[in-house]
Amino acid sequence: MKRFLDLNDFTREEVLSLLELARRLEKQPEPRALAGKILGLVFFNPSLRTLASFQVGMARLGGTSFVINPGQGTWQLETRSGVTMDGVAAEHVREGIPVLASYCDALGIRAFADGKNLDEDLAESRFSLMAQLTDKPLINLESAMNHPCQALADWKTMDDLAVPRAGRFVLSWAWHPRALPLAVPAAAVHMAALRGMEVVVLRPEGFALPPAVMERARRAAAASGGSVRETTDREEALTGAQILYVKEWGATSPYGDSEADARLRAPLRDWCVREDWFGGAPDCRLMHCLPVRRNTAIADAVLDGPRSIVQREAYNRLPAQMAVLHQMLKA
Amino acid sequence: MKRFLDLNDFTREEVLSLLELARRLEKQPEPRALAGKILGLVFFNPSLRTLASFQVGMARLGGTSFVINPGQGTWQLETRSGVTMDGVAAEHVREGIPVLASYCDALGIRAFADGKNLDEDLAESRFSLMAQLTDKPLINLESAMNHPCQALADWKTMDDLAVPRAGRFVLSWAWHPRALPLAVPAAAVHMAALRGMEVVVLRPEGFALPPAVMERARRAAAASGGSVRETTDREEALTGAQILYVKEWGATSPYGDSEADARLRAPLRDWCVREDWFGGAPDCRLMHCLPVRRNTAIADAVLDGPRSIVQREAYNRLPAQMAVLHQMLKA
Amino acid sequence: MKRFLDLNDFTREEVLSLLELARRLEKQPEPRALAGKILGLVFFNPSLRTLASFQVGMARLGGTSFVINPGQGTWQLETRSGVTMDGVAAEHVREGIPVLASYCDALGIRAFADGKNLDEDLAESRFSLMAQLTDKPLINLESAMNHPCQALADWKTMDDLAVPRAGRFVLSWAWHPRALPLAVPAAAVHMAALRGMEVVVLRPEGFALPPAVMERARRAAAASGGSVRETTDREEALTGAQILYVKEWGATSPYGDSEADARLRAPLRDWCVREDWFGGAPDCRLMHCLPVRRNTAIADAVLDGPRSIVQREAYNRLPAQMAVLHQMLKA
Repeated sequence: MKRFLDLNDFTREEVLSLLELARRLEKQPEPRALAGKILGLVFFNPSLRTLASFQVGMARLGGTSFVINPGQGTWQLETRSGVTMDGVAAEHVREGIPVLASYCDALGIRAFADGKNLDEDLAESRFSLMAQLTDKPLINLESAMNHPCQALADWKTMDDLAVPRAGRFVLSWAWHPRALPLAVPAAAVHMAALRGMEVVVLRPEGFALPPAVMERARRAAAASGGSVRETTDREEALTGAQILYVKEWGATSPYGDSEADARLRAPLRDWCVREDWFGGAPDCRLMHCLPVRRNTAIADAVLDGPRSIVQREAYNRLPAQMAVLHQMLKA
Repeated sequence: MKRFLDLNDFTREEVLSLLELARRLEKQPEPRALAGKILGLVFFNPSLRTLASFQVGMARLGGTSFVINPGQGTWQLETRSGVTMDGVAAEHVREGIPVLASYCDALGIRAFADGKNLDEDLAESRFSLMAQLTDKPLINLESAMNHPCQALADWKTMDDLAVPRAGRFVLSWAWHPRALPLAVPAAAVHMAALRGMEVVVLRPEGFALPPAVMERARRAAAASGGSVRETTDREEALTGAQILYVKEWGATSPYGDSEADARLRAPLRDWCVREDWFGGAPDCRLMHCLPVRRNTAIADAVLDGPRSIVQREAYNRLPAQMAVLHQMLKA
Repeated sequence: MKRFLDLNDFTREEVLSLLELARRLEKQPEPRALAGKILGLVFFNPSLRTLASFQVGMARLGGTSFVINPGQGTWQLETRSGVTMDGVAAEHVREGIPVLASYCDALGIRAFADGKNLDEDLAESRFSLMAQLTDKPLINLESAMNHPCQALADWKTMDDLAVPRAGRFVLSWAWHPRALPLAVPAAAVHMAALRGMEVVVLRPEGFALPPAVMERARRAAAASGGSVRETTDREEALTGAQILYVKEWGATSPYGDSEADARLRAPLRDWCVREDWFGGAPDCRLMHCLPVRRNTAIADAVLDGPRSIVQREAYNRLPAQMAVLHQMLKA
């Protein structure tokens, strides 16, 4: 495996094989598997789990890593093409990325959506530019519309807890003070569809996932025996659900208009997940990729109650990514 | 040893045994003792010695570490319970700490005092909340009222220099532009008392250490054959002293009132340690945990002169903490 | 080798021997050569290549490293002598540097020029103060007037590409929004002179390199059979050149006067390297230490064209520095 950029680049069988490797590494550690290997981690945006778990994953496999946060101890990096660089950015990714790649055996890059132009974000224009700048093994640490490491960890979490392959997976929008990117919801619906689940996207008007995202998930569902639909009816969506996967994201109609987004979300503060959401789904588990704002997106009682599996989900980033690293870098 | 949170959790004999281990590791390195072990370091506040010496300590024992600075490259972490998180913090320690702990073999946390409510700071409410969130091995990298790693290094420094067990240990307040926490003075008086020393706390009016801190030190002194008293009389305190341990801290009556604190400290700029303080104690050594502001807390001539042992003290953080890590993580 | 502070501290033969070692380590890795060794890296200024390549270099040789950015997660460090520290800096380098040095086997320090007083910057007063504070092995990661790691990598890059020893090396000033330090141009002219090249410094009026810098390069040229001259005539300088080494730097007459500097550079935006500069030097290679601002210092077409060797130059930081570390720290 040369690149881990999108779960959609892999067949269902290839994903299952990665998950099997993740479980094996949990039981049978391989502390020298990546001895001498070096991973460079470039974060254009904040991180906690990705930052920690990739460093730990390399260390647990005998390798090492280094971290670059553009603009923090290092130069601001320009990503636009053709500009006259007389602003704050002192360096362009056209130099920065290949140079960093030349020092290491694999590179991971996090670059969130610009959140201005939906087509550009859907095209992954910023991440793709950087990906084209190196032919070293490359990992997507979250791009404009994708977060394959999270998706892989989420799949493993459901397997760990024996969530049925054909169970109902509800992705629900939740309230947040401002618009957040679509990367995690897009990755989550695709992942659940590829797993073969009955996927329901529950969101208020104005927050529908882009047609391209839904279509991609539907294609994955068609190949795996699952299904994908969307609704604004919370009770209907949740009745009989096995998984409620909560995520905050920005308005998509219009997209990238912060004033319109603020108006749309202002009356939606009741989209904070509370225990009474689960009347029709008593055994439903709660997932969230974290970070989560307590009592805005999800109430304390739910996060601290028995249905929350958010910490296991976060822990699973480690073995899932170790499988990716192992497959990518093991001689 | 599962946790290293407070020197008071250990008997005098257990501390002596840790110090013995520290000396042994200095003479007989064990470069593979912690092979495969990973330490997570979470700093809510700045650090130089702790930041560097824990990374080095793990490396010298064959292990590795990673560093998280909430708000710098990672999310701001909320520590208050029950709040509606619609402010700057994107994540709560209730998620963040257990998640980080799940990736590593031991966790270290630095979280200074809030400096607003003395009872809450004395109760270590913030640090305790976080400590309860994980059952992984845990190290206090400085909390509201404690700094056990510093205390252990200080004890070793006095042993290294053959400072008599029953010698006089003067903790003196020093001037600083603003109020600093009580963690180091509280840890230092307790440590010196537990060592069996004649402890004198020298401080201006308004800067007495809290009764709970003094009482804790007195109990340690009683068990170890030492004593603890306080004074405002510099000459009396220093006459015959073996150690002058200098530290800046905030007013305690009132506590957490920055205007009152500023008024109290305004006339106290002569609490900058100068060579003429040592007339009655020619062989007295000077200690300070660092960082220290030159010519405000301590004059250049004293810091650069032969009585200063501040660099040895700082160096001793390394072997002292290696002993803690070894005892905590060695299979 | 105890210190790597200035290429001028070494004979031509010693430099050639370091370059030989760098090439050997590229072909025959020594993944355990520095096992157990620890490098501390202190950056008073931003870095990308130095930050990444030193961490990677230690890892590739089996050692480890840690990074300190004063003021970012750690205290602001004061460098002036004798001051009363009641400002923002909480710690003085007189404590900070020896303490960090006591934890590790070698220390690297980056501290750019203050850019106010030319004599002080030429005297390397800030870096020298810090260098005197420790007798541990020490590496200059870029000081006021020097960047020996860059110079060594540049030399290796020209050797890799078989640039003739006696070829013409043109150091050209380029436009930048503000004054930058003289470290790289000073190091580059000295390096090329020591290599034995025909060195031409091409710069507008007001931007001549200081006489002391030129004189030092001339002495190196005299010993190596090279030459050093300066000009404002671009066409004459470039005709027949093998290397165009581009760098932005601040006005030197006057030095440290930002208004005068701005006036001097305002009409010089055509000092952006474009393809038509190379009419008289069709095979001339383009070098730049990076970071570079595209379309201000160098046009896209040149950076992306076949004459640019800036990425190889940046990559060579790694083997060049591995040779330094190997020679410095290998038992």
